[in-house]
Amino acid sequence: MKQVLVLGAGLVARPLVRYLLDEPEFQVTVATRTVSKAEKLIDKHPRGIAMPIDVQDEAALGAAIATADIVISLVPWIHHMKVANLCVELGKNMVTTSYVKPEMQALDAAVREKGLIFLNEIGVDPGIDHMAAMSVINGVKAEGGKITSFFSYCGGLPALGDNNNPLGYKFSWSPVGVMLAAKNNGKYLKNGTVVNVPPEQLFEHYWLLDVPGGGTFEAYVNRDALPYVDLYGIEGAQSMYRGTLRNIGHCESWNYFKKIGLLDQERTFDFRQTSPREVMAALVDSNGDNLIEDIARFLEVPKHSVTIKKMQWLGLFSDAKLPLAEGSVFDMFAHILENTLVYAEGEVDLLVQHHEFIAEYADGRKKKLTSTMVDTGIPNGDSSMARTVSLPAAIATKLILKGDITLKGVQIPVLPEIYEPVLKELETMDIRLIEREVAL
Amino acid sequence: MKQVLVLGAGLVARPLVRYLLDEPEFQVTVATRTVSKAEKLIDKHPRGIAMPIDVQDEAALGAAIATADIVISLVPWIHHMKVANLCVELGKNMVTTSYVKPEMQALDAAVREKGLIFLNEIGVDPGIDHMAAMSVINGVKAEGGKITSFFSYCGGLPALGDNNNPLGYKFSWSPVGVMLAAKNNGKYLKNGTVVNVPPEQLFEHYWLLDVPGGGTFEAYVNRDALPYVDLYGIEGAQSMYRGTLRNIGHCESWNYFKKIGLLDQERTFDFRQTSPREVMAALVDSNGDNLIEDIARFLEVPKHSVTIKKMQWLGLFSDAKLPLAEGSVFDMFAHILENTLVYAEGEVDLLVQHHEFIAEYADGRKKKLTSTMVDTGIPNGDSSMARTVSLPAAIATKLILKGDITLKGVQIPVLPEIYEPVLKELETMDIRLIEREVAL
Repeated sequence: MKQVLVLGAGLVARPLVRYLLDEPEFQVTVATRTVSKAEKLIDKHPRGIAMPIDVQDEAALGAAIATADIVISLVPWIHHMKVANLCVELGKNMVTTSYVKPEMQALDAAVREKGLIFLNEIGVDPGIDHMAAMSVINGVKAEGGKITSFFSYCGGLPALGDNNNPLGYKFSWSPVGVMLAAKNNGKYLKNGTVVNVPPEQLFEHYWLLDVPGGGTFEAYVNRDALPYVDLYGIEGAQSMYRGTLRNIGHCESWNYFKKIGLLDQERTFDFRQTSPREVMAALVDSNGDNLIEDIARFLEVPKHSVTIKKMQWLGLFSDAKLPLAEGSVFDMFAHILENTLVYAEGEVDLLVQHHEFIAEYADGRKKKLTSTMVDTGIPNGDSSMARTVSLPAAIATKLILKGDITLKGVQIPVLPEIYEPVLKELETMDIRLIEREVAL
Repeated sequence: MKQVLVLGAGLVARPLVRYLLDEPEFQVTVATRTVSKAEKLIDKHPRGIAMPIDVQDEAALGAAIATADIVISLVPWIHHMKVANLCVELGKNMVTTSYVKPEMQALDAAVREKGLIFLNEIGVDPGIDHMAAMSVINGVKAEGGKITSFFSYCGGLPALGDNNNPLGYKFSWSPVGVMLAAKNNGKYLKNGTVVNVPPEQLFEHYWLLDVPGGGTFEAYVNRDALPYVDLYGIEGAQSMYRGTLRNIGHCESWNYFKKIGLLDQERTFDFRQTSPREVMAALVDSNGDNLIEDIARFLEVPKHSVTIKKMQWLGLFSDAKLPLAEGSVFDMFAHILENTLVYAEGEVDLLVQHHEFIAEYADGRKKKLTSTMVDTGIPNGDSSMARTVSLPAAIATKLILKGDITLKGVQIPVLPEIYEPVLKELETMDIRLIEREVAL
């Protein structure tokens, strides 16, 4: 019986845990701070064990890892290195859905030496994006072609049928991550030129994208795309872009949310004494008598602009105090978003991933190739986010334990030995990449 | 066998024709210019007859009407009076889904004298809106209350799940009607004051509305609401508003479309020689070198504004000539809208109607009452627009022919004798009004 240790029982864990419990030769231990969460996932399965753990407690963590054949770390990425170091020490394989940080990459030699694999970035973004990319890129190379341009887009959104609020977005968990990402800068390569997008232009530098079978979305730049030229082995590509997909109107609204200071983590208020309306007035130096006019003037938009109506709808002009103590404007906005942009019972999410490549061949042929995934959550079941993040990790874990993946070292899923069987099995679970091509 | 004459076989006719053919004692003649359309609706039904007719040809029209017991006029409203005058002359009942114009109302005495009913406004808007309103209003009156405020909203939209283009709107037929309506003015009563909305403010004077079970929409004023105080018998109401519902971002975009001149019917171009891009440049006095910057300056919006991206997505900056001859900017925009904002195979529409009332009672109680209809089209079947427009007319026709409606004169469905049985039967067809109330 192979021993699988899953650290964390958060929102995306369920499909992974259930998948691994379905394997008759696996015993699955879910270790998490709140053991009831793990128990819920295990649901009394005879080969499942729920155990409480504090990942800060290195001795307990080591003891748990010592009994495992493989460790899947679904805890926040700041804890990954503690787990990784113990896995090296104790000679255990490891799987995460998180980005490889330099300190993780630095373990590569030690991991190889121990004959282990630390497979990271095997979720959706990162994860399915890499696998979809490499499937196309290696296909083009096999035909003797080369990739000259790659635009990669991904977004998690409310499903079209449940996209029923004015912001076109809903949160399944804390909005803090999305809010912090709104302050990122971005960088990409376009026709041989590096394009730098500073944070204050993040939501001004975007375009509309038609995704076949998905609809039309806004796309804005997702961090630094330049390292992906090497990562994907497309040296010589003149364009390499990675973008985030959101619904129409998102960028304009968030641009104004930023400009007015709703993402400000420095400016603080005592929310027991200050209503959202008073905060908004303070942000635009208004005495509050003509708040909407003052906001319009501050943002240089007409007072009937839809952005101001969205602010109103969110409750930002409300006189009612929020159940918060002292905190930043950012904290206030996070509270408001978390309580207004919510999935109702039975509503589902959507994961859209769309890659667009230009390939050129020695004989002068030129093609546009696309790879598209449009995946919807299951009503009253697992979200698309949960399935697309955790099922690739679950499948890869099985393949490692069964000896079908024999790679060693710190890896991400860009090699056929990983992505071919994982993508093939995802298809059986209705998570499909549709590849299309047209001659140019 | 009762003889029903249906004039017109347009987009909404099918549910009505099929409903009436299902009545064993009715023979249904569908008369239309293009007889193949009528034949398609009849689909070889033994009690159905398709006949060609030119409504301009008064002799032919009279001959057709002479053999009928009731005439349902689904032809454009400009032809209704010709039909109505023949119906008076030949002593036939008449049904339309169109607004009663003064010249129709003027026939009231003649219609009564002949013992006939001309039932108009028995579609959805007008139609179900009246019936839903009177159902609530008469209920309040029966309890001894009075309506002090009535806000009525209605909109035909793409269904949420098929709302997949950046404009949030799709056309099943020519966009001309919607485009002309965008130039209307509006008028309503709010807290005892008449609010006039001039055409240039139509899309600046709007708000967001949460419709239970429907989502959040923009609402802008729909023509003059003041006559409805008398029509609905709510004299003394301090507020009476009628609004059109659209998806988020609609008003802002259409406001800019108007401002830039896309609805201009005077300014003409030869589209064989002028591309949309050249038209747009001309509208903002641009030499075309920096079109987006020039448009942004003209509209006083940032050049990254979502409105400009929507224009681009529509093809308004395209260099490719359109298959049009000489015409106005309005004609060009109509052509573009009709060819970009389309329902794909299997996509469906949505009809949302939401009434909000305040009722006050002699004992001082105060209530908010709402009546809501959220109806979705049938995939690959009838649209919600077709069903909600034509089924009320079909049901009323049956009730008139069976003697269940005995009213005479020029009528609209504000009397219980009409709206009670019609609403009851609509419910059996899944077209439901949900009434809710909360104490204030």
